[in-house]
Amino acid sequence: MQPVRGPLASEPQTVLVPRFCASLMEMKLPGQEGFEASSAPRTIPSGELDSNPGPGTGPSPDGPSDTESKELGVPKDPLLFIQLNELLGWPQALEWRETGRWVLFEEKLEVAAGRWSAPHVPTLVLPSLQKLRSLLAEGLVLLDCPAQSLLELVEQVTRVESLSPELRGQLQALLLQRPQHYNQTTGTRPCWGSTLPRKASDNEEAPLREQYQNPLRQKLPPGAEAGTVLAGELGFLAQPLGAFVRLRDPVVLGSLTEVSLPSRFFCLLLGPPMLGKGYHEMGRAAAVLLSDPQFQWSVRRASNLHDLLAALDAFLEEVTVLPPGRWDPTARIPPPKCLPSQHKRLPSQQREIRGPSGPRLTSAEDRHHHGPHAPSPELQRTGRLFGGLIQDVRRKAPWYLSDFLDALHLQCFSAVLYIYLATVTNAITFGGLLGDATDGAQGVLESFLGTAVAGAAFCLMAGQPLTILSSTGPVLVFERLLFSFSRDYSLDYLPFRLWVGIWVATFCLVLVATEASVLVRYFTRFTEEGFCALISLIFIYDAVGKMLNLTHTYPIQKPGSSAYGCLCQYPGPGGNDSQWIRTRPKDRDDIVSMPTLPGRGWLVSPFGTNPWWWSVAAALPALLLSILIFMDQQITAVILNRVEYRLQKGAGFHLDLFCVAVLMLLTSVLGLPWYVSATVISLAHMDSLRRESRACAPGELPNFLGIREQRLTGLVVFILTGASIFLAPVLKFIPMPVLYGIFLYMGVAALSSIQFTKRVKLLLMPAKHQPDLLLLRHVPLTRVHLFTAIQLVCLGLLWIIKSTPAAIIFPLMLLGLVGVRKALERVFSPQELLWLDELMPEEERSIPEKGLEPEHSFSGSDSDDVSSRLGPLRRMCQGLGERSCPGAK
Amino acid sequence: MQPVRGPLASEPQTVLVPRFCASLMEMKLPGQEGFEASSAPRTIPSGELDSNPGPGTGPSPDGPSDTESKELGVPKDPLLFIQLNELLGWPQALEWRETGRWVLFEEKLEVAAGRWSAPHVPTLVLPSLQKLRSLLAEGLVLLDCPAQSLLELVEQVTRVESLSPELRGQLQALLLQRPQHYNQTTGTRPCWGSTLPRKASDNEEAPLREQYQNPLRQKLPPGAEAGTVLAGELGFLAQPLGAFVRLRDPVVLGSLTEVSLPSRFFCLLLGPPMLGKGYHEMGRAAAVLLSDPQFQWSVRRASNLHDLLAALDAFLEEVTVLPPGRWDPTARIPPPKCLPSQHKRLPSQQREIRGPSGPRLTSAEDRHHHGPHAPSPELQRTGRLFGGLIQDVRRKAPWYLSDFLDALHLQCFSAVLYIYLATVTNAITFGGLLGDATDGAQGVLESFLGTAVAGAAFCLMAGQPLTILSSTGPVLVFERLLFSFSRDYSLDYLPFRLWVGIWVATFCLVLVATEASVLVRYFTRFTEEGFCALISLIFIYDAVGKMLNLTHTYPIQKPGSSAYGCLCQYPGPGGNDSQWIRTRPKDRDDIVSMPTLPGRGWLVSPFGTNPWWWSVAAALPALLLSILIFMDQQITAVILNRVEYRLQKGAGFHLDLFCVAVLMLLTSVLGLPWYVSATVISLAHMDSLRRESRACAPGELPNFLGIREQRLTGLVVFILTGASIFLAPVLKFIPMPVLYGIFLYMGVAALSSIQFTKRVKLLLMPAKHQPDLLLLRHVPLTRVHLFTAIQLVCLGLLWIIKSTPAAIIFPLMLLGLVGVRKALERVFSPQELLWLDELMPEEERSIPEKGLEPEHSFSGSDSDDVSSRLGPLRRMCQGLGERSCPGAK
Repeated sequence: MQPVRGPLASEPQTVLVPRFCASLMEMKLPGQEGFEASSAPRTIPSGELDSNPGPGTGPSPDGPSDTESKELGVPKDPLLFIQLNELLGWPQALEWRETGRWVLFEEKLEVAAGRWSAPHVPTLVLPSLQKLRSLLAEGLVLLDCPAQSLLELVEQVTRVESLSPELRGQLQALLLQRPQHYNQTTGTRPCWGSTLPRKASDNEEAPLREQYQNPLRQKLPPGAEAGTVLAGELGFLAQPLGAFVRLRDPVVLGSLTEVSLPSRFFCLLLGPPMLGKGYHEMGRAAAVLLSDPQFQWSVRRASNLHDLLAALDAFLEEVTVLPPGRWDPTARIPPPKCLPSQHKRLPSQQREIRGPSGPRLTSAEDRHHHGPHAPSPELQRTGRLFGGLIQDVRRKAPWYLSDFLDALHLQCFSAVLYIYLATVTNAITFGGLLGDATDGAQGVLESFLGTAVAGAAFCLMAGQPLTILSSTGPVLVFERLLFSFSRDYSLDYLPFRLWVGIWVATFCLVLVATEASVLVRYFTRFTEEGFCALISLIFIYDAVGKMLNLTHTYPIQKPGSSAYGCLCQYPGPGGNDSQWIRTRPKDRDDIVSMPTLPGRGWLVSPFGTNPWWWSVAAALPALLLSILIFMDQQITAVILNRVEYRLQKGAGFHLDLFCVAVLMLLTSVLGLPWYVSATVISLAHMDSLRRESRACAPGELPNFLGIREQRLTGLVVFILTGASIFLAPVLKFIPMPVLYGIFLYMGVAALSSIQFTKRVKLLLMPAKHQPDLLLLRHVPLTRVHLFTAIQLVCLGLLWIIKSTPAAIIFPLMLLGLVGVRKALERVFSPQELLWLDELMPEEERSIPEKGLEPEHSFSGSDSDDVSSRLGPLRRMCQGLGERSCPGAK
Repeated sequence: MQPVRGPLASEPQTVLVPRFCASLMEMKLPGQEGFEASSAPRTIPSGELDSNPGPGTGPSPDGPSDTESKELGVPKDPLLFIQLNELLGWPQALEWRETGRWVLFEEKLEVAAGRWSAPHVPTLVLPSLQKLRSLLAEGLVLLDCPAQSLLELVEQVTRVESLSPELRGQLQALLLQRPQHYNQTTGTRPCWGSTLPRKASDNEEAPLREQYQNPLRQKLPPGAEAGTVLAGELGFLAQPLGAFVRLRDPVVLGSLTEVSLPSRFFCLLLGPPMLGKGYHEMGRAAAVLLSDPQFQWSVRRASNLHDLLAALDAFLEEVTVLPPGRWDPTARIPPPKCLPSQHKRLPSQQREIRGPSGPRLTSAEDRHHHGPHAPSPELQRTGRLFGGLIQDVRRKAPWYLSDFLDALHLQCFSAVLYIYLATVTNAITFGGLLGDATDGAQGVLESFLGTAVAGAAFCLMAGQPLTILSSTGPVLVFERLLFSFSRDYSLDYLPFRLWVGIWVATFCLVLVATEASVLVRYFTRFTEEGFCALISLIFIYDAVGKMLNLTHTYPIQKPGSSAYGCLCQYPGPGGNDSQWIRTRPKDRDDIVSMPTLPGRGWLVSPFGTNPWWWSVAAALPALLLSILIFMDQQITAVILNRVEYRLQKGAGFHLDLFCVAVLMLLTSVLGLPWYVSATVISLAHMDSLRRESRACAPGELPNFLGIREQRLTGLVVFILTGASIFLAPVLKFIPMPVLYGIFLYMGVAALSSIQFTKRVKLLLMPAKHQPDLLLLRHVPLTRVHLFTAIQLVCLGLLWIIKSTPAAIIFPLMLLGLVGVRKALERVFSPQELLWLDELMPEEERSIPEKGLEPEHSFSGSDSDDVSSRLGPLRRMCQGLGERSCPGAK
């Protein structure tokens, strides 16, 4: 019955077995007495001392942090896979069957459906935990058991005094019986490990093959260990039998587990039949306990029963209790987006045991610790002229070769396709609009060419080559104003624009030289939202206005009207053809011969018909545009270079601005659109280049490892965009109303994505129906309304100024918003501003750390999340990447 | 200090006070010892015996059910409002402040924001419950305390031996201090009850006014009682002081509670400062306990400390425990849609204490107990000719007068507006389509007139007057087929149609006479879904086809094409005007003079140009149409007369079918569209007439009381629809593509709403990404796929037959589906069919009751809910009520 064989004999420490595993607890029937204070320490099996300087279960002294510990070579605790094998079929056909498994979340075997359930948060009932505690307290606890096989292990755990030799034999045979695992490898046909007795060789190999083929195995990281809980009713036992074993060395225990992992923990919960699903629930309780990171940490270091029970009690102290009348215990809770921060729960040595995605940052943490205005190492002032730029070049130069080699991955191919589509759509939309705004000579083709040239140049030169340039948003609005302005003064537009570009480049160089990028932190959400709302309203207003113009130009022919009966259209060179994007047949030949368009040369003439002094006067609008470009570019750069993207090659704020200045000059000379970094498409670009771990537990989000930082994907995207000018014969059939519709959509989408809009809605909503926004938990409603009202007044003023002939000065109003925001410090407390806005650099120091504590909302309706906090301004007007960009979502 | 005054002196039982409240528990400091078995009963204060024959806390013997008990005059336990007053400001400025309140869910005072939080599921930590138990076990428990004022109550609870007289005085003064309640009555400005001492008269009146003005008061049902928990740190106490009081008679305790409710329970938890938020959490634990229906039931009947602790232990046994590593305890859980069934938890006397919405039926329960095929009392066969019809008339006649008087409610006015809009939209859509399908003489105007005549007549005559008739769905499809058929054979359509109508009316009369409605249970979801999918596909196919035809008829003028440059349209009497709904100017005069349309009289000629024998041959299509109408009408009727709508006036299945038959005859004679009950609009109609309780706790859904069953709203809706023919001059401007778009939308919407579509998606989805559908938990995936594949094959066959000249026989294919479904019994087990479909009458008997147990899914993504289970066929093709109908949603 007990043929002790195999590795046991060859193991030098087998002689220690009797000493370490001999002290057995006398088993008692665990009653309903519930929790008992384990104040009196019992005789406990003294385990071999751990290599760790046994810190008990209390929080260990502050050790090295996770990243440090990795560098120091201190191993992390391995991941634990827990499996529940239940004893079913008493008394006729006893068999072990795996009915549940845990890594982070619980998966239940749906017996009827023959499949694993979706991963969910495990829920327990309290009595099962109480009974488990009693059973363990009275049962057998073997810590650092040196068993080397299932056989040895079974021999150890059945050496219980209360068992007669005969019963012991029966029990051992039962425990050695191979359990049935639901096997998903065999495709669609559910397959169970056979219960039929097989030959010895078959016995050994078949299950092992199944274990290795298990898809779960690939998902678990190397070094993962297993824990097995065996539970069930066994009629021939007179008393419950509880055993908890920690193996000294993790051992693969045959086919005990469904995946061939070395086992570290083994828990046995058997007893005479009881009412309800007692042992099932107790087994689940043990498995959930073992899957708890804190309990794992403690129990790996436990040196006696007292430590084990203390770890269980520590677990109990932290559980969340839902009252029975208000929560259905059978409801399955899907894995939450935000897990509780392990940083708070766990001793420091154990921190980040599950990698970055385990203790995912919550939105509030995210905001306060890694918000767009958190100081970045690249944004420290050096104090020397062009000091930042020089540092940027020094930082990026060593990576330049790897920026091309790192692109050799299949993922980059799909990223190129994805970003190319977004870029081309953008170019069509804004090219069409821009052509409409300036003159017929500009248009989609220029947009394609300009995007290709500017984007590719930026990818090759910039500090952050993942950035995608675009001629959208505020700069587009400004260009439209500039065009109206030049028309009002009967100026030759392109030469005037050239001088604006020259001045802008000059100002930007000054900004680079003086390291002005560090001022970016003064643009808080208040400023961004006000500006975003203004731009959105301009887009909506224009789109609707143009559509109404169309119905005026081409009235619907009603049966009663005078024109009814015959409608003649003569699309000639006049205004009537403006419903199509203008590309005259002649242009197509030019495309093939590689546009410029007829009527002008490749280069813009520096003066044209304008008086010379306009080239000096252009400095004024250029100053305004510089403010815009600086804001647009730098806030985007801060967002792209966030800490949570784990960029390895560093940022280049000053270098990026320098590149934008150079490109400004280039595009002005060539008469191409102006370009600034586009937040949303750039975020989508980064997102499509995410490196993620494949090994992840069921229900867990994949671990984020970093971004494939390289210059090649962007370069290829822009080369493809340049090649897309050959699409022009197709593109000219796109009617202008389609573009208006896209603009209307973008305006509405951008407007509805900002917190400001949510707060405006709050103004009109009775308190009872208001959503459970985090800010409403911390700021009185009247203060929220006051803040919203001030924003509304600012927006009104902006709109009024925008409607006057002085519209072109609107970038100055932006600075005005910063001033208003500064003045708000006298009206609102820093605590209130923290929730309603963000803090300016001076304010951050005045807030106690406690105020920065995160708080979660379970509700999916709490839309006051990352998306509305990160870059509200940049998210708008950035084209069609919007909906498809998970990063911005 | 203790001026015993007021009602106490006039109360005859005051002499009993010392005896009942004298036995005080010696207080001890509750340590960390956790749960202690209360096996040794202590000296407990013997309360006056309750009027109930004290059943302790165990489940009492089965008493009368809730509805019975109401009739028998046995009072239900009153609703309990619980409030937590915390002692804040130790040691400088002690004050009581209300920080939480409970009815069903928890509302927390957001101190910083000065508002009540959204209601949420209360979550507790286990140690707070443990400490509460210890404190109560050691503290003072007064059951049936006869105190008549706060002063008396305070005197009672401070008679603790461990307190010195001086401390007792201080404590009494503190307890008598008026607590601060956050007052929401004063509009936007947050207002706190003042802490400043006021004059005596002011002291008495001001808070009372606030209490009465509290909006919460209107929400609580009459007879509601209050429970107050007072908790906090009090530095001058050497030991914790715990007291639990159940007042013999509920008394308004001054301004203790924020609403002026008589208090029944009072819990005091004070003690020396401890670490963490100990007393706050303990107070919350006590409040959550008191808000638990089961605990309330027990503690109202508890006769001693042992009972109280047993009730607490019973609560603990049922709590749901979430592990700390997988659930953030600070996350707020919004009130779940499905509360756990109190029927299971509670003793029978307490069942339905919260009315029907408390223990809301879950989807699975709903399906299995009240599904469309649950036997309705009206669907029992009498066995006599027209027996069912006679019974229906007998049942409905006594209600006829009340059917008009019950409509005198403002809600009926809004219901009329809502349903009128849905009906008119439907009439426009289908009228336009029908006109397009038959000839130009029919159209929107006929649709309006027909809907008005048929609907109004049905409302006046039918068994279920809440039904809204519509000429949509399968009948519309059949009429289109009939029209093509008659065109193929060069028949005069309207006379042929008249004979079809006459035959259908005859067949329906036979069905009424033979009480065929009881067969409706053989049409399971399998049949409904197959048919629904076919109709949806026909709609989509037709809509797309017609749109493509339009682009063929009116090609887009491309710049390169020959017609480019001049486009002339001559909308004359030919086919070119088919893009507008045809209403010639002459018709408008006819409308005013009250259409018929030129070219035909009011009545359809019985033969026209058709040979006489076509009137006999019409019986064949009529037989097919009868099958359709029978199905369409009767399944809708079963859905509308469900048990959960709590209809008081009974159904009239046979009478309804009889009415449809008569209307069939009428509309055929007049050449108007044919009408059958429309499920979705009828459900919307019922939903708009829901009677709901106004008194409901925060976070609770309103209690459903029933439907305003009457004939007036439907009648007015159809009179308004009839009057809407004057809208015709406006309606003629609706282009046909708009109607095609609506049809396309309806086809797609109907197709995507059925479970079949979900299962087709499962075919293409790897198991990992499949949603957590209930059926996937119970049926193996391969079996699900097999079922779906069979349905797909059936659908393919239906589509093939539909595409042949034999298309008109498609109602027969419906019966074929029933046959296929019957054959599936040999392939699938009843258990599988229960989840994949519904059970046919014979199968229901073969399933054990256990298989019918409900199971919940917490996930919002589990769309396998009521909407996909109830009336999948009827939901489609029923017009625009779809999206706006909460009943079907």
